[in-house]
This record gives sequence, structure tokens and C-alpha cells, in this order.
Amino acid sequence: MSETYPELNPPVRVLMGPGPSDTHPRVLAALARTTVGHLDPYYLEVMNGLQAMLRAAFRTTHPMTFAVSGTGSAGMEAAVVNLIEPGDRMVVCVNGVFGARMAEVAQRARAEVTRIDRPWGEVFTPQELADVLDRVRPKVVGLVLAETSTGAWQPMEAIARVVRDAGALLLVDAVTALGGIPVEVDAWQVDVIYAGTQKCLSCPPGLAPISFSPRAMEVILSRKSPVQSWYLDVSLLANYWGQSRAYHHTAPINMTYALYEALRLLHEEGLENAWARHRRNHLALKAGLEALGIRYATAPSQTLPQLNAVLVPPGVDDATVRSGLLTRFGIEIGAGLGAYKGKVWRIGLMGYGARPANVLLLLAALEQLLAEQGYAFERGSSIAAANAAYAAGTA
Amino acid sequence: MSETYPELNPPVRVLMGPGPSDTHPRVLAALARTTVGHLDPYYLEVMNGLQAMLRAAFRTTHPMTFAVSGTGSAGMEAAVVNLIEPGDRMVVCVNGVFGARMAEVAQRARAEVTRIDRPWGEVFTPQELADVLDRVRPKVVGLVLAETSTGAWQPMEAIARVVRDAGALLLVDAVTALGGIPVEVDAWQVDVIYAGTQKCLSCPPGLAPISFSPRAMEVILSRKSPVQSWYLDVSLLANYWGQSRAYHHTAPINMTYALYEALRLLHEEGLENAWARHRRNHLALKAGLEALGIRYATAPSQTLPQLNAVLVPPGVDDATVRSGLLTRFGIEIGAGLGAYKGKVWRIGLMGYGARPANVLLLLAALEQLLAEQGYAFERGSSIAAANAAYAAGTA
Repeated sequence: MSETYPELNPPVRVLMGPGPSDTHPRVLAALARTTVGHLDPYYLEVMNGLQAMLRAAFRTTHPMTFAVSGTGSAGMEAAVVNLIEPGDRMVVCVNGVFGARMAEVAQRARAEVTRIDRPWGEVFTPQELADVLDRVRPKVVGLVLAETSTGAWQPMEAIARVVRDAGALLLVDAVTALGGIPVEVDAWQVDVIYAGTQKCLSCPPGLAPISFSPRAMEVILSRKSPVQSWYLDVSLLANYWGQSRAYHHTAPINMTYALYEALRLLHEEGLENAWARHRRNHLALKAGLEALGIRYATAPSQTLPQLNAVLVPPGVDDATVRSGLLTRFGIEIGAGLGAYKGKVWRIGLMGYGARPANVLLLLAALEQLLAEQGYAFERGSSIAAANAAYAAGTA
Repeated sequence: MSETYPELNPPVRVLMGPGPSDTHPRVLAALARTTVGHLDPYYLEVMNGLQAMLRAAFRTTHPMTFAVSGTGSAGMEAAVVNLIEPGDRMVVCVNGVFGARMAEVAQRARAEVTRIDRPWGEVFTPQELADVLDRVRPKVVGLVLAETSTGAWQPMEAIARVVRDAGALLLVDAVTALGGIPVEVDAWQVDVIYAGTQKCLSCPPGLAPISFSPRAMEVILSRKSPVQSWYLDVSLLANYWGQSRAYHHTAPINMTYALYEALRLLHEEGLENAWARHRRNHLALKAGLEALGIRYATAPSQTLPQLNAVLVPPGVDDATVRSGLLTRFGIEIGAGLGAYKGKVWRIGLMGYGARPANVLLLLAALEQLLAEQGYAFERGSSIAAANAAYAAGTA
């Protein structure tokens, strides 16, 4: 009668791709704590603490800050479908996979979408957006702060002001940003922002931190039509995460423990310290890669420290190197998506993964694999360059 | 700079409510295994194993059997929004909270919904559904196999035939059913069925097992309009769970480990053995409760073994008993929802929680609390009655 299936036995990896990143051991331990009920007095305390820590991470006082019970893409969908009613105009800035996804989600929510495109790896200027907003006068503008497919870092302060001046709601994708670079929800006056757990928070994928401004909540609570998704309807979720604690759906208890512990780690370190750590390790990795003659796909001033998109060097086989890293060293880096397929490696330094041990290991392993492919570089140069960058960074 | 938040310290509970149920220790251990990437060769093996085990659990050969990256309610939404196009007719059978939720989700997907209602605690007959189908001729019929809000067990075999004879697609909510009572997807010719992890699978909440028949996939792949949810669009998810393994969204890796291990446990025991265990413990609990003079809200032939909805005895205070169980014994049972608020207790015997230790502990604790409220019963009677039922069951 009974059958057997192979025992679970995941290999230990060094996750240096575009996410998931390495889960911190304390977060893994949190996952395995005993499950309690979703209305247990203790769980309600965990929710309160989680919300306080998320507000601090997003740098906001927005009451409606919580975690969507799905991955980052569910956060994107929650952001869009709550704001958009059929026929609403939305401008989406597309310079990679995730901007394009946002436009697609908005279309399915029956928005009238105006898409502005920039080449992959580039970012948007306030002026070009201002021109479009003048013409379109949208209800919502969507921007990706950290484009995971290209490693491009969108400067937000000035462009957010343009959105605000046009009277539109600002919707920001911070999936790869939160915990790795500054995310200033109140200073930028962001109306809806969402993130992922599996990037710079050292937590497995499964939840999407999200925050709605009081202005966004007002718009949502005065909608003429119901939100098309019952599961993601923030006017219902507000009752569970708010004072009344009314049951909506059964919360993902153990994943919530994990995010709680991940946020504790972030705040123990301090947000600014975490950003500085991502930057320090990025500069060392960059020095090492450049010593190997490897070039970035993004301009230096627009490069995310936590996601290094670099060009596969001429004469080097993309797949051979990635599979060598995985099978011989247990290191995962990311392949290029879309326009970058076969041409770009995406090297993540995210959360717990943003540490010198990972930087040096990857450089050393890359050197070995590149040498085997006959790629010419000054042997040993990458480690020395990375170490010099670390020394300069701590001086 | 850095702030501190309280250490995570969840109490150990005995979860005997409507779910989440107690997570099996092996499943907790699986949750804490190291995270790998969502395209890691090892993870793809886990996905394959998970799908095979889910098909066996659902008793189906449907290729498109997988886990939605959200809780049971996300499974419900995935089932509905993939099948429904605007204006499609759907009949929803409502005899509790979850049927009503399905009707609501269908309305938001712009179905033309015909709702048939039965009083809470009752189930639907094939004849009454046949009459409605004759009149409405819907594309989809939604039924709840195990209504978590009332403990009612909907007989499926004959009613499924009625749906099939009317040429409609059959959509079944099996959130609380899977692993606890027979779920026969192929025998009943179910087109879409979804479940939850946090009920009879001994796993925390966070994923929704789901299965689409080839007939359902044909209907979905020939839709005129895109599925309103990008996140839940099964035509896209089929590429990730199918041969091409195309990235859709980052899978919830560690929760997938947990479900994998939960399904291993289920198949090690054997499906029929698991059903028999739920029934054996239910009969013992029932004997004990009846010895205390406590009555069920459902008719005996329609009572789910895994969810015992019983009437709060006259003169006994609902909240005092539930809070006494929680604070003095660590036992969670469920309150009544909606029409049952303040009148019904929902006692779960689900998955790992369906065991004699839990049955006897709950009865003993209930006896103590009821005695304190001056409730008259034959002292000691419930344990003896439960033990007699166990003895009879194993004879």
C-alpha cells in the first residue's frame, strides 16, 4: 500500500545569483519553530513586531505596512490591482523584465497602460518622465528601483518628485532593493512599495513585504469597483493586520517567523550598516572582476551593489562556466534573461550572501574556470585587487 | 543606530482548531534545510517528486498537478480565475464560509454567478443541483468537499456525475479534505481541485496543492481573454512546472521542502491508512464528547472526521472555555464563524494532530473546564467512552 519517495537532501549552495540568496542560519532556525494558530495571541504579537520592523526597513510610518502571502510577484500584483480600476491610466517605466511584468499585470487589471522604454541596463531621467506625465496625466506611475534583470539602480528622489508634482500615485518595485540600498518611502512619498524576502533580507522566498500610504488607502477605500483579486484585496487584509484581527485567509505562519527573524537581523546590524556592507563587498567584487578584464553591463553610477550584471567575456562559454561553478564549487550565479540571454552573468551579493568569503570564493573559482577555457588574464590578479579594495574601504 | 526587537519564542501549542494543525517534526526539520535556487537541478527533482506525490494524494494522473505559491485561498482564486472568462456562467453551492468565498471570488472574476444555498451544516443533493443546472447551463460548477466552517462532508460521487452530465466543468474545494478523507479526482472526473497544506498534511500554511484536468487545460489554453491574474495564470505556470522550466516567479523553496516531506509522510503511512486514522480518532472524540452531552452541528453521515463542529452546551461560556484551553493547556480549538459565532466549537483532528494523545488530552481538559462552569455531566465519562471507542475500533 505505502510507497516511498527519496529523502529530502538539498545540497549546500553558495547562492550568488539574482535570488534566492543564502538564508541566514538564524532564519532557517526560525522557520523550524513550532507552528501556532493565525489568531493565537502570540502570533498577533509577531505580526505587530513584523510590521514595526518593516516600517523601519522601508523608512515609513505608513500604518498599512505588512507582508503579502505570496512571493515578490504577488506583491507586484497586490500593488497594481488595488490601485487600478478598469480604464485607469497607468504609466510604467520599462528597462528590464520586471518593468515589463508590471505593465503586463496592469493590462490584465484593465489599466490603460502607457509604457516608456529604456534600453536594458539604463535608467530613466526625471525630464523624460515629466514629458510623458504632462501628456498622459495618469493615475499611477510604476517604477523599478532595483531592476533584477539588468542590475540597474534607478535614482528615485528627483523622479519621485516629478510623479508627485503630476498628482499621480507612485508605485515602486523594491523587490531586490530592500535591505541592500536606501529605500526611503516617506522621504520619496511613495504610495505603494513592495519587496521580496529572498534578496537582501537573507530569508527564503515566499512573502512580499508591502506598504500602502494613507493616500493610497484613501483611493482604494473609495473605489467604485471591487479589487479583482479577493486574496490580495488590501481593504480586507487591513482588517486582519489592523485592530479588528478579522480572519481573512490562514497566514503563512512559519514563513512569517522567518521574515520576523530576518528583520531582527537587519535591525541588529542597522540599516545604514547593511547598505555599507553591500557596497563594500560590491566594490571588492568589482575590483576583482575588472582585474580579470570582465566589464559591467551597467554604468558605474547606476550599478546596484547587490546585483552585478557583467558581460560574459569574449571567447568564454556562458553555460560551461555557470555549470562549473555549480557542480565543482556549489556556487550559483544567474544567467541573463531576455535581451541578456547568453551574454550576461548576474552575480548577487545579497543579504547574508554579501560577505568577503563569498566574494573571494567566487573570484578564485572564476579564475580557475576561465583559465581552463584559455581565457587570458593576469593570474592571481582578482584576489589581490579585491583585497586591495577591502583594505581601501576599511581605511 | 541598531534597534532590538523581542526574540522569536513561539509557545508549543496543541493545534486542534480548523487549521493550521500541528506541523510534524520531520516537516519542521525540512523547512530548515538550506535554500537552493529555483532552477537548481536538485530543486527541479524536488518539484518532480512533489508532483508525483501530489498526483497520488489526489488520485489522479493529471499532468498539471502542482502547488500554488500562496495559501489555500490563493488556490481557490487560481482555480476560479483560470476557468472563468467575463460573462461565463458559474453555479456555486454555498453551505458555509468557503462556498460563499468561492462565489465572491467568481464575481470578482466577472462570472455570472448563480448561488445555491443550503443551511449551514447541511450538504447538497444531486437532484437539487441537477434542477439548477438544467435551468442555468453553466460553464463551471463549484462545490466544497469539506466545509471548514461547518464540518459538513459533501458526498461527491453522485453529484459529480450530475455536473458531468450537464457538460459543466467541476471545480472542487478540498482544502480541509486532502489527506483526511477520500479525494478521488479521476474517479469523480474533477476538472480543477485545490487543497491547503495546513490541514490534514501536517504542514504549515503557505502553499495550495492544485490539479487541472486535461479538459480544464484545453479550456484555459483556448481562452479569448488573458487570465486576470498574472501570478496565478496556469498557462504560464505550466512552463515552469513542465518540461521547459521557464522562470515565472521565484518559487517558495523552503515551503516546497516542507510540503515534499509532508507528502512523503502521507505516502509512507498510505492514503487509506491515513483516512482510517482520521476516522478512528474522530469516533473516539465523538464518543467522548457525546458522553459529556455535547452534540454535533452536523448529521452523523455528513460529519467530517477531521473537523468536528459541535454545539457549545447550554449554560457554558464559549470564550471562557476556549481561552482556558489555550492558556492552561496550550490547546487551540476553533471558534464558530458567521452563523456559528459563539454557538459552535470547531475541533480539528488533522494530519499529525489526529492521534489518541490529542483526543484524550482535549477531553480531559474540557472536562476540567466544564466542571468549573458548573456544567453537569458524569465525571470521568468522556475518557472511558473514548477509550471504549478505540478498543472497539481496533477489535
